Amino acid sequence: MKTSPLAPANFPKLPVIDGVTFATAEAGVKYSDRADVMLALLAPGTAVAGVFTKSATRSANVLDCQAKLGNITQGPAAILVSSGNSNAFTGGRGVEAVKENAKAVAKATGVPQERVFTASTGVIGEPLPYDKIIAQLDGLTAMQSPAGIEDAARAIMTTDTFAKGAGVEVVIGDKPVKIVGIAKGSGMIAPDMATMLVYIFTDALCDQESLQLHLSELTETSFNCITVDSDTSTSDTLMLCATGASGINVADDANFLAGLNTVMLDLAHQVVRDGEGATKFVTINVTGADNDSDAKTIGLSIANSPLVKTAIAGQDPNWGRIVMAVGKSGAKADRDKLTIRFGDILVAEKGWVAPSYTEEAGANYMTQENIDINVDLGIGDGKATIWTCDLTHGYITINADYRS
Amino acid sequence: MKTSPLAPANFPKLPVIDGVTFATAEAGVKYSDRADVMLALLAPGTAVAGVFTKSATRSANVLDCQAKLGNITQGPAAILVSSGNSNAFTGGRGVEAVKENAKAVAKATGVPQERVFTASTGVIGEPLPYDKIIAQLDGLTAMQSPAGIEDAARAIMTTDTFAKGAGVEVVIGDKPVKIVGIAKGSGMIAPDMATMLVYIFTDALCDQESLQLHLSELTETSFNCITVDSDTSTSDTLMLCATGASGINVADDANFLAGLNTVMLDLAHQVVRDGEGATKFVTINVTGADNDSDAKTIGLSIANSPLVKTAIAGQDPNWGRIVMAVGKSGAKADRDKLTIRFGDILVAEKGWVAPSYTEEAGANYMTQENIDINVDLGIGDGKATIWTCDLTHGYITINADYRS
Repeated sequence: MKTSPLAPANFPKLPVIDGVTFATAEAGVKYSDRADVMLALLAPGTAVAGVFTKSATRSANVLDCQAKLGNITQGPAAILVSSGNSNAFTGGRGVEAVKENAKAVAKATGVPQERVFTASTGVIGEPLPYDKIIAQLDGLTAMQSPAGIEDAARAIMTTDTFAKGAGVEVVIGDKPVKIVGIAKGSGMIAPDMATMLVYIFTDALCDQESLQLHLSELTETSFNCITVDSDTSTSDTLMLCATGASGINVADDANFLAGLNTVMLDLAHQVVRDGEGATKFVTINVTGADNDSDAKTIGLSIANSPLVKTAIAGQDPNWGRIVMAVGKSGAKADRDKLTIRFGDILVAEKGWVAPSYTEEAGANYMTQENIDINVDLGIGDGKATIWTCDLTHGYITINADYRS
Repeated sequence: MKTSPLAPANFPKLPVIDGVTFATAEAGVKYSDRADVMLALLAPGTAVAGVFTKSATRSANVLDCQAKLGNITQGPAAILVSSGNSNAFTGGRGVEAVKENAKAVAKATGVPQERVFTASTGVIGEPLPYDKIIAQLDGLTAMQSPAGIEDAARAIMTTDTFAKGAGVEVVIGDKPVKIVGIAKGSGMIAPDMATMLVYIFTDALCDQESLQLHLSELTETSFNCITVDSDTSTSDTLMLCATGASGINVADDANFLAGLNTVMLDLAHQVVRDGEGATKFVTINVTGADNDSDAKTIGLSIANSPLVKTAIAGQDPNWGRIVMAVGKSGAKADRDKLTIRFGDILVAEKGWVAPSYTEEAGANYMTQENIDINVDLGIGDGKATIWTCDLTHGYITINADYRS
């Protein structure tokens, strides 16, 4: 698979987070000649938060993580992720696979089983050969390294075309706190649907409840505002672990939240930049809606419209399709108060094309790699920003192939 | 444009409906060398019902039709349809175009202006050159013919690859009542989004209120159950005219409703069969849902999923993507009670692939032109049927081209 034209030049240099170590191995779940399993260990005192897919058909791993996070307290933790098989829609055997993996991690690492979190990503409906993963656990435990995060990012890839990482250092009082994260997704893997998995680590000290609150809140305006093709995975998982190793209590610190938001947005954007077949990175800013929820609905309606996405792929400044997508969203809109801009170019206003707009200016704008679509509803203060990519022949080629 | 591989062999032989006549002309709105305007005239005593797009950015024509139907009584009527330009998002000039056209039709035909219904289909955001249409009205009035319905079906096409018509004769008491209809859509036209326009005519006698009630009700399970690409036009219009010429009062007659339903379903299916780039006609039967509304939500979630649609295009029996689409729909579902069949082939049940299922059987089934996906939720009595087509390179090619 060719690297996405929208990929960053390199995997970023990420700072080491005290209290978290990584190791990867080639278990041969589905892929060969590459690492496909990753084990991360978190120091005692770690707070863990998580956000998961709302799918009614979510995987056994997701259900297990959700149950374990239900009444967790701070302490050591382990994260085991395997790629190639999603362990979704595998009935009782899926539940068994999760249990056996967690039990084996507990045995190899000493982390209590109820603090072992697993995720699997890849093909749906095939039994996970968990014995292959378990066979690697002693090695994975022995090889733990604080510097292994880039390898971890690679091990969780399916048909991602590049490994995704992001990190920041924020200063709280006069002391540094580090936040790093990795992600995979979100196209579909060639044979099947993929999964978005995101793991973020920080050496900040944070109580369990605040950590979960911050993660849930920031998810709404980052990962929940991206879309490649409107299809939701059965395994989407986002976890945030705060080891507390810095000794700096962040609770509601604004710098920490800003840093966390930066990492989350960076990873979310990288997922869009690796959208299947993507050639354009599209930012949709909706303002002036009746409320924020309406703004998000309108933004997603534009972002998920096959007509808008194909127009962008064709470098066609087809603003009529944006009008259409606003209209069909179900959110409050008044045709005659709608304003549409491509970047700074005023395209349409007062129910019609702007007198100053020229098709040439629009067409020229659309040749860029980064496209900003700015829509103002003119009826309230609601706003939202959504990120997406275009819909190209590449998407069809990747997803219309028979599973190999 | 090549005719869709899913097109019927011929335009059907449709019976003449007493009380309705047609004429078409080449106005040159956008296309040349083809008819692009259609005028239908309805006899005094005609009842008219209509159903329209719910888009918040709907066209001036749609708003005008809705206003006129608000308190209409039986009487003569006229329908003027032009293709090539949708007159949508054209501000005050759009409203003016509708008024001027209706006024001119009234003048040419003697039908009161408040009983003249117009529709336009084609490119968005460009002023409709209504003078070109008005110039044809005397000719269109003079040339009215009861046999002109096939020409009418052709005149309203945009990038449809075939003209769409359907008709039935039902017996009420021992007397025949005829119902015929034409439709256009619903892909997108090459330059822009298309519109679904449907006009149905019958010589039945029916009061205004019953006619509207029946049309609205049957729309829910026919036109509102089809989708090509989840994008909703700003101009969708469906009108039903009962001339009363047969003298047979149908009110709530079951045969009449069955016949009307047949015509509506036939036209709806033809619209899907002309879906842009379509190579498969897909029927999604959802049963056992919590309620009918949930069943429809699940059916549409499957039908609109790019992953499901590309899998079908690739003849891939990728049932995992169906599980995903059920899960993301938001409707009530229990992974472990879900049953999926391709036609009669049991694919998945009890939260996992069925023991009897073979990938070969599934792959073989998917090579057919007509695909039935049967999903049973196992939790209630709700049911719905949705029709759609696959998502292919053809769709991208058609819609990612720069507007010419």
